[in-house]
Amino acid sequence: MTDSPFTLHSRSSQCAARRGEVKTAHGVIQTPVFMPVGTQATVKGITPENLKELGAQIILGNTYHLFVRPGHELIRQLGGLHKFMNWDGPILTDSGGFQIFSLRDLAKITEEGAAFNSHLDGSKLFLSPEDAVMVQQALGSDIMMCLDTCIPYPASREEIIKGTELTGRWAKRCRDAHTNREQLLFGIVQGGMHEDLRARAIDELLEIGFDGYALGGLSVGESHEQMMDITEHTAAIMPQDFPIYLMGVGKPEDLIEAVWRGVDMFDCVMPTRNARNGMLFTSEGRLVIKNARFKDDPRPIDEACDCYVCKHYSRAYLRHLYMAREILSSHLNTIHNLHYYVNLLAEMRKAIEDDCFAEYRRDFYSRRQQK
Amino acid sequence: MTDSPFTLHSRSSQCAARRGEVKTAHGVIQTPVFMPVGTQATVKGITPENLKELGAQIILGNTYHLFVRPGHELIRQLGGLHKFMNWDGPILTDSGGFQIFSLRDLAKITEEGAAFNSHLDGSKLFLSPEDAVMVQQALGSDIMMCLDTCIPYPASREEIIKGTELTGRWAKRCRDAHTNREQLLFGIVQGGMHEDLRARAIDELLEIGFDGYALGGLSVGESHEQMMDITEHTAAIMPQDFPIYLMGVGKPEDLIEAVWRGVDMFDCVMPTRNARNGMLFTSEGRLVIKNARFKDDPRPIDEACDCYVCKHYSRAYLRHLYMAREILSSHLNTIHNLHYYVNLLAEMRKAIEDDCFAEYRRDFYSRRQQK
Repeated sequence: MTDSPFTLHSRSSQCAARRGEVKTAHGVIQTPVFMPVGTQATVKGITPENLKELGAQIILGNTYHLFVRPGHELIRQLGGLHKFMNWDGPILTDSGGFQIFSLRDLAKITEEGAAFNSHLDGSKLFLSPEDAVMVQQALGSDIMMCLDTCIPYPASREEIIKGTELTGRWAKRCRDAHTNREQLLFGIVQGGMHEDLRARAIDELLEIGFDGYALGGLSVGESHEQMMDITEHTAAIMPQDFPIYLMGVGKPEDLIEAVWRGVDMFDCVMPTRNARNGMLFTSEGRLVIKNARFKDDPRPIDEACDCYVCKHYSRAYLRHLYMAREILSSHLNTIHNLHYYVNLLAEMRKAIEDDCFAEYRRDFYSRRQQK
Repeated sequence: MTDSPFTLHSRSSQCAARRGEVKTAHGVIQTPVFMPVGTQATVKGITPENLKELGAQIILGNTYHLFVRPGHELIRQLGGLHKFMNWDGPILTDSGGFQIFSLRDLAKITEEGAAFNSHLDGSKLFLSPEDAVMVQQALGSDIMMCLDTCIPYPASREEIIKGTELTGRWAKRCRDAHTNREQLLFGIVQGGMHEDLRARAIDELLEIGFDGYALGGLSVGESHEQMMDITEHTAAIMPQDFPIYLMGVGKPEDLIEAVWRGVDMFDCVMPTRNARNGMLFTSEGRLVIKNARFKDDPRPIDEACDCYVCKHYSRAYLRHLYMAREILSSHLNTIHNLHYYVNLLAEMRKAIEDDCFAEYRRDFYSRRQQK
């Protein structure tokens, strides 16, 4: 068992929501927290200063992408990922497992690791659990993830058992390869939608001992209800004195429901990707900026929002930038959407502190229905 | 004759370079000055705050583009171009003449004005000299330009005379249509590469009386020497108590040579467009960031530069962003290149104040040769 980087501040009396912090080599993160995704050593379209200004505490980097380009050795040589991209706050790197899984026919998973073809030039590459840790150590992230096998959905119980057991054996190999203890290493709980398999996976990971535990294999096609059911059951039996991270999820309502069920950490491309596609989040729901009704609308995206974009720009201007395919459209939309997510988590932290998370959650849904 | 918005601070004893200021409704501009181009109500890829931070004093907006999309009436309704795009400093708008000229076969010039097809959807549009002023008054720019006819290069003396005379008649119509005297109106001197035709054009414009005078029809295919010869002869006979603006020029060496010959104001897409194409300006010359030799180069773009980008990012990182087609590549490259141009003009202003422009110019060229 390792010392936990997690400190609990308070618990909701109304649900499993909890307010805490995670200590990393580049600073302490207040949880629950949302981590903006910076796939290729940049959160697309914005600077590290923009991230700080909008309140981001920690960002996520993608091991697969950085491994393929520009390469982890180059980043190590240039002083590590923090220095390379000019971000001095905490960074979590995924293991590459999900991206390799996304390559489908281009990837072959064996006991040894994952053989795959680069999405850039088709070149043959290989990533073992040991490689995944080595790459993340070269990047110098604050939180590393074990290489896992992402199990398709739907899958047979046998397939799920096979993938979950392999993830467990890989987790042990990752732990053994983990030499820089300045960097935290999280284990990933697989097990599909089966509560007993999730429980078995947790037991296996606990036997090895990690600095945090993640719920993997969700947001892969199951319903919102299925996702929340398995999150609730799994989060409840995960070790409560360590951070609990729900990977790759999701919509604002997913985050509210997962925090309710005890999750501490989130990442998702939704706020950044949707921003580039002109889909903006507001306190009253979503807004598609190219809609003709915004053509001459002098109001900000969200009158309840105090982000840089809502302070200075009209919907009419943002629609113009989107229609004209201006780069500034992605920049401003990204700042707004990330501010929305980061602020949503800040509001949730406050609601847990004030022990009124149930009321906060109710207000969240009623604001949307009023629209 | 109107009161001039121009105040002369000092003149070089070595050449025709002059240090002055231009007073506008949104602030005073120190000259010589470079104006970043913000075609579609945005300087591509950066915010107004970025522009202020890098030292931009005034920006240029394109009447043609804003007329076509989103439309000047919409911008007027939303409070004018300054408010629309969140820039509270001075704005100069061109007249649209150059863009319509660039449409070539899609445009037809008559005595009445320019008939053209929108580059967006092919719809038939028309812009008279009166329309050009009306559109710019709706935009609310600080400095408006008369609608001119851009004469092709090379062209016969007859063609040049025809285009220059039409520009003169249009200038009179622009002045007559100009009702908001808070906005300055500049006349445009055509005349091709012929000194006598340029002189005749100046006389015609002086008879009407403008708030400033621009050299048009340059950087259209002539050599650097031809451009500088006609700039020298024309600037010398332009009214010295008004601002002198060389439109659409140019390279750093063009700016040095034109300031030497008495020009006060410049605009050019080169720093912004080249930035997006990965071509960066440095004190030692140009740098193409995708070049493989920058792959692991930890140095900033320019070790002599103190811009935000050079303070925080390596050539290796900027190359990575460019190769990965990341939006941040355009953002950072644009900040650097505009800083280079804005700083070049700040250095020139200082050199004129210190009356050492000849030494400054010599050093400029010798820094490049050392490379």
